[in-house]
Amino acid sequence: MTKFVYAFNEGNKDMRNLLGGKGANLAEMTSMKLPVPQGFIVTTEACNEYYQNGETISREIETQIFQKLEELELATGKKFGDPEKPLLVSVRSGARTSMPGMMDSILNLGLNDQVVLSFSKNIENERFIYDSYRRLIQMFADVVKGYPRSLFEQALEQKKQQKNVTLDVELTTEDMKEIVTIFKKIYQDLAHTEFPQEPKTQLLEAVGAVFRSWNNERANVYRKMNGIPHDWGTAVNIQEMVYGNLGENSGTGVAFTRNPSTGENKLYGEYLMNAQGEDVVAGIRTPESIETLKTLMPNVYQEFEQIAHNLENHYKDIQDMEFTIENGKLYILQTRNGKRTTKAAVKIAVDLVREGMISKQEAILRVEPEGLDQLLHPTFSEESLKSAKIITKGLAASPGAATGKLYFSAEDVSVHSQECPTILARLETSPEDIQGMNDAKGVLTVRGGMTSHAAVVARGMGRCCVSGCSELTIDEATKTIKTKEGLILKEGDYISLDGSTGTVYEGKLETVAPEISGDFETFMSWADEFRKLGVRTNADTPKDAKEARNFGAEGIGLCRTEHMFFSEERIFRVRQMITAETLEQREQALEQILPMQRGDFEKLFETMDGLTVTIRYLDPPLHEFLPHTEEEMKELATSLNMTFESLKTRVNSLKEFNPMMGHRGCRLAITYPEIARMQTKAVIEAAINVTKKGIKAKPEIMIPLIGDENELRYIKNIVNDVATELIQKSGVPIHYEVGTMIELPRACLIADKIAEQATFFSFGTNDLTQLSYGFSRDDAGKFLNDYYDKKIFADDPFAKIDQNGVGELVKIAIQKGKQIRPDIHLGICGEHGGEPSSVEFCHQIGLTYVSCSPYRVPIARLSAAQASIREKANK
Amino acid sequence: MTKFVYAFNEGNKDMRNLLGGKGANLAEMTSMKLPVPQGFIVTTEACNEYYQNGETISREIETQIFQKLEELELATGKKFGDPEKPLLVSVRSGARTSMPGMMDSILNLGLNDQVVLSFSKNIENERFIYDSYRRLIQMFADVVKGYPRSLFEQALEQKKQQKNVTLDVELTTEDMKEIVTIFKKIYQDLAHTEFPQEPKTQLLEAVGAVFRSWNNERANVYRKMNGIPHDWGTAVNIQEMVYGNLGENSGTGVAFTRNPSTGENKLYGEYLMNAQGEDVVAGIRTPESIETLKTLMPNVYQEFEQIAHNLENHYKDIQDMEFTIENGKLYILQTRNGKRTTKAAVKIAVDLVREGMISKQEAILRVEPEGLDQLLHPTFSEESLKSAKIITKGLAASPGAATGKLYFSAEDVSVHSQECPTILARLETSPEDIQGMNDAKGVLTVRGGMTSHAAVVARGMGRCCVSGCSELTIDEATKTIKTKEGLILKEGDYISLDGSTGTVYEGKLETVAPEISGDFETFMSWADEFRKLGVRTNADTPKDAKEARNFGAEGIGLCRTEHMFFSEERIFRVRQMITAETLEQREQALEQILPMQRGDFEKLFETMDGLTVTIRYLDPPLHEFLPHTEEEMKELATSLNMTFESLKTRVNSLKEFNPMMGHRGCRLAITYPEIARMQTKAVIEAAINVTKKGIKAKPEIMIPLIGDENELRYIKNIVNDVATELIQKSGVPIHYEVGTMIELPRACLIADKIAEQATFFSFGTNDLTQLSYGFSRDDAGKFLNDYYDKKIFADDPFAKIDQNGVGELVKIAIQKGKQIRPDIHLGICGEHGGEPSSVEFCHQIGLTYVSCSPYRVPIARLSAAQASIREKANK
Repeated sequence: MTKFVYAFNEGNKDMRNLLGGKGANLAEMTSMKLPVPQGFIVTTEACNEYYQNGETISREIETQIFQKLEELELATGKKFGDPEKPLLVSVRSGARTSMPGMMDSILNLGLNDQVVLSFSKNIENERFIYDSYRRLIQMFADVVKGYPRSLFEQALEQKKQQKNVTLDVELTTEDMKEIVTIFKKIYQDLAHTEFPQEPKTQLLEAVGAVFRSWNNERANVYRKMNGIPHDWGTAVNIQEMVYGNLGENSGTGVAFTRNPSTGENKLYGEYLMNAQGEDVVAGIRTPESIETLKTLMPNVYQEFEQIAHNLENHYKDIQDMEFTIENGKLYILQTRNGKRTTKAAVKIAVDLVREGMISKQEAILRVEPEGLDQLLHPTFSEESLKSAKIITKGLAASPGAATGKLYFSAEDVSVHSQECPTILARLETSPEDIQGMNDAKGVLTVRGGMTSHAAVVARGMGRCCVSGCSELTIDEATKTIKTKEGLILKEGDYISLDGSTGTVYEGKLETVAPEISGDFETFMSWADEFRKLGVRTNADTPKDAKEARNFGAEGIGLCRTEHMFFSEERIFRVRQMITAETLEQREQALEQILPMQRGDFEKLFETMDGLTVTIRYLDPPLHEFLPHTEEEMKELATSLNMTFESLKTRVNSLKEFNPMMGHRGCRLAITYPEIARMQTKAVIEAAINVTKKGIKAKPEIMIPLIGDENELRYIKNIVNDVATELIQKSGVPIHYEVGTMIELPRACLIADKIAEQATFFSFGTNDLTQLSYGFSRDDAGKFLNDYYDKKIFADDPFAKIDQNGVGELVKIAIQKGKQIRPDIHLGICGEHGGEPSSVEFCHQIGLTYVSCSPYRVPIARLSAAQASIREKANK
Repeated sequence: MTKFVYAFNEGNKDMRNLLGGKGANLAEMTSMKLPVPQGFIVTTEACNEYYQNGETISREIETQIFQKLEELELATGKKFGDPEKPLLVSVRSGARTSMPGMMDSILNLGLNDQVVLSFSKNIENERFIYDSYRRLIQMFADVVKGYPRSLFEQALEQKKQQKNVTLDVELTTEDMKEIVTIFKKIYQDLAHTEFPQEPKTQLLEAVGAVFRSWNNERANVYRKMNGIPHDWGTAVNIQEMVYGNLGENSGTGVAFTRNPSTGENKLYGEYLMNAQGEDVVAGIRTPESIETLKTLMPNVYQEFEQIAHNLENHYKDIQDMEFTIENGKLYILQTRNGKRTTKAAVKIAVDLVREGMISKQEAILRVEPEGLDQLLHPTFSEESLKSAKIITKGLAASPGAATGKLYFSAEDVSVHSQECPTILARLETSPEDIQGMNDAKGVLTVRGGMTSHAAVVARGMGRCCVSGCSELTIDEATKTIKTKEGLILKEGDYISLDGSTGTVYEGKLETVAPEISGDFETFMSWADEFRKLGVRTNADTPKDAKEARNFGAEGIGLCRTEHMFFSEERIFRVRQMITAETLEQREQALEQILPMQRGDFEKLFETMDGLTVTIRYLDPPLHEFLPHTEEEMKELATSLNMTFESLKTRVNSLKEFNPMMGHRGCRLAITYPEIARMQTKAVIEAAINVTKKGIKAKPEIMIPLIGDENELRYIKNIVNDVATELIQKSGVPIHYEVGTMIELPRACLIADKIAEQATFFSFGTNDLTQLSYGFSRDDAGKFLNDYYDKKIFADDPFAKIDQNGVGELVKIAIQKGKQIRPDIHLGICGEHGGEPSSVEFCHQIGLTYVSCSPYRVPIARLSAAQASIREKANK
């Protein structure tokens, strides 16, 4: 015979699968002899049994419930339904994992006309009894029967209007009695039978309703979103009622053992005297800080403080507790591990280690990596958020908070950013906008996903960005944005972006600068002790590189050389190079670019002294660099001795239908080997120059978009020829490696052949994701929303690596690559390199390092440490 | 001790790996007692030994050569270097496989000053001896020493000018003597030593030179292009010289045992009396038909006819022979299997079976599948090609020959194609051009590769197309084409396209209609006996379907429903559907499209009665259907009750950066399930309607671009819901299948999950190739030329399936698909389905069928038969 019902004193905290989280903790506290109102738990297995039994509570379960009810009656000396000493209970849901607000509760079960009548005579507070009764009717009608809650609320509202009062508490005992009569009438009209007077009927119906609430729509959606299996089921907690609203000697509150916002080791919470839990939440009266309870009820406070301390010691983590004081007696109604800000999480984890409560490994697992972002970026002040008006929600493309005046072109941003903070708004950014993105406080785009140009570049810069605001209509010509509601924002209007949530606000909000405490450094150093995966950064400028090194990057895993080409003095030369019609013209232009690029590399080598710098050769389609305006075209034509018309023809001939799959990557170096020659010169000469100054340069030359071993062989020959000559001529020994990005599906399948040429692979999972799914990252944003709405996709594959498809390709490539070159270095430099679940995957499949944008370096370090610790734990 | 040298009588035809093709056949003919000038062969192993030995002929090989030389002297009764009875020999290369013109030969070895002097006294023709000697010097200088041939040619030219003659034959004996003196002087100036007088030195040097010619650049390129391994090496044939230019009783010629152009079973060839082989080739005199030899030298003719007959019987294939008549005596210098047109190949293969010479299997292997195209399409007459001027070469995108007036828009073509043949020239075609492509005789595009829109559609229609003519500059505004040489072609000018070779000609050429003989049908029926792979067709119209069925298609493997949307009356409704902003508007438009599409399907089912019709749901990005002109937009806006401006905004919002990876395929049906509902209605209602008429409809519904099993599940539910309701309502039992295209790399990797939903897979290897390589088919043409030039790619992966990469993905998908559904149907509907090596691959990996454009159906049938026969032979 299965045991379906457990008294609180029959369970413990490790039984959460069976008893649910809330129930297991109530049982644990009972065994700790804490003042918990007694009760019992109907198990999650009973819930599953309920569904298998056609949504009926079996005779067996019913019997066990009533048996435990009897035991509870004995323990409390009260009786369920007894007019003299009535036992009143609450019925609450409680799944394995907290699903806040998703399921239902019913309070005050056990009241009926007779109990109310006699009970109200026994205790002083008659109004309270009737109020409790009308709440029971209302909740029962809503939760058990599914009747519209609004009917009851309207009736209450009418009564208040009739009595000319605004608050419930202003209604008298007589009013409450009348309301009970009205509510019973409403119930009867709907149910065609009277409100059940038999307490046991009430109880069984309530338990069934809680079981059913496991399967309501919002709970289903929540489970799907959070990956909670459907067959876990919910437990039901039946507990004696205690009341904080019995008078000035009663009260209720919530408290954390430490400050959940800062992590400070000090009781933190609030309470209201003469109130119920829902009053604290409703915000009708302002709750008092828990500190004031010390003077108000010193004994209760001391007892609570002791309990809090015990609970934290017991659970070895910050506790979030609910308590009630009934006529001066303290009851603990719930405890659970407290949610906390990342700042608090780091401090608490470090403190708990110092207090000897947990190990470093446990501390590392206590902090959500994704949250570290909060510690590195500005945020909006809570004060300013209170009155902020949300315009739209886009994608949280690059974290941080930014407020500024709206401009619609990179040039306008650059002009105005001297005088005021600016926000760059574009349909979608292009590489030409880089200077403007750098000058702006934040970037907003209407199109594009998590790995669109705007998102990738903004993350790289640590610039706040909200992308894919598809509800907005942007008109770059008239310089306006129109919201879905028809609000028009003009150039120069203030707007605020939260890149951590994707929220866009109207007007100017106050930002708060990040504060990084010493605990953060300590914590990260512990993470480094445990991780095996290296962490490099994607950085194109010495500024980014320096920032990333400060955040703990161990090298540059991706330097996108094309990003160096967009500054004003350079783009002209680049355009000359692209549009040149003869080799000679192209080489002349390259000759001009060489010293600039060499200078960039020298600065990067200096910044990363002693660490690897992985330099990716020119990658994007050349037409990204093309001139747009007539003026630019004319100037260029003159410099190239071309007519305007023939330049225009040339420019048009470079346009492509699908540039992402066009003339880019290594294909450029195959058509124009002189580009690879120039870039090799720049890398090797820079390395020679800084080496002479005592700097240790470790260049890795990375050839992008390789799909066939012959491509790599061809370019590698060029690289080696140029490099060997320069090194021999200089007499300075430079060690460099030549490897490749693996970002085409085909490259994964022939990785063995590629490995014969390459000493390292760096997985470009952005392109690999694009091509595996056939999703253009710039276009997919539009239809992926339908995929989420229709539950076809749970996650954005550009944000979290798709382990089944893309991950499988990566695994194939690793296996084939190692077959030929067992010591091959394996990295990832796609955007996934800074996303926790993807980093864990990278650890599991045996990569050497991940590379991510500077601001994600700490996230990657922590994720790697957690992956390593979890792997050991699972062995 | 390895045997490096074989006398002709020591070998046979099966020793071609060791003796080379030419040598093995000379040996074989010797053993057949045919009149072959005697000689010996230095083996291919000796060639490899030569390279391993630092390009030196080892003492061992030298000894063996001179030993065989002695035997040859004994056999001929002549002596190498002897002034009285000198043995003269030729030295010719001969690899396993014929590499025509790639390597070198030297004739007349054994001549020196002394031999010439005494020899010329012994025979009548003194001039001939000196002419032979100067040729030896010239060839030796060129082939052995690598001196510029032009120096000798200039000297000869000077002599002719000096003597005021134009032809070599007009030079006298004295002139030739002087030329010998001059040539020796040139040689000595270059070599700083005199021309080698020792015949054995000449011989060894010549053998070494032939070995080295194996490694010259053109031979290397040829091998790379034809996949001939470098380590095969070449053999060297040393053979006694015979002369066809000793007088009117001598001659030389080439002949085929059957007509290589028509296959007619009759000796076919030509000869010249008093001439050497090179004179026949040089075309100075017009050779005589072999028939005239019958009267001129009846005995020789009869002997030759008998030999030809014997050789054909012996080799069991048409022979291509070289012969020389020296003073009335016939010598056979070479025989090999004759190259032939496809028309001849088919007839010969069928005849040989009928004559009992070869089996049906052998016959099937004798015909190159690719060549069958020639039998189905018109060609240019040989006459008109003689004076044709080539403008440019593009890609041979769709075979056939077409001549017509040039027009630059589909509309112009449609208007003028009533009056005259037309050619449509476009930068690149789009789906809107379909009517024009259909009306034109041929299509020319400047951009786009072998699987660009133009190429795919043209092949589907059997319309001649040359794509990717990147040397041409097209100006669609002024309606002109400019060639690289600056020639301007205007609207209405005649132009001619050869879609089988990619050649574009100026002006009007005469076309010749195809003649299909009964042999072709016989031959194809034999192929069908042996093949295991099914062959379906890609057809969108009843006309195409009918044609394909005539060509032997066993079903439709791909019906692209979007191609049905472009006719004038429909596109308007489609545009309404796309641009509709509400579901209601979209459903109204779909309601209008439904009867049209249903009608199409009814006709297809009727045409394919009893055969499967695989219908792919809407696939291309919607913006392909968008209106372009203001006029179209205005009309559309009115019909949709939208302002022009808001329609324009909507149209712009549908444009994509990379449409190939954008909102297309199943993604459309996920955003707009109403499209899938309409298409299902059309398919099922059509099937019901024709079934009532006694037609057997076998629809397979194919969902394109599936990358995740949830996509297919979502759409399949829609299909099944609609279909089940219609079938139940009608009471007509319709069996339909739901499957998917596998065309995304990710689909291959999760094919097991997809197979749970799909009863068939059809591999869309066009998209799979695009995405595996990251090559946009519309853009790759531009840079792939560099890939071929630089030997990075040997083949166009859009033409021949890439077995290592794309093929590997297909194999993974098959393995995973069969794991879940062992009886899953597997097809291919990419363009590769009609390419022989790809069809063989499809057979090998176990596909159920291939599907290709109607005109490639016979090619696929033959390729499949060959694959099956070869597989059995290799077992």
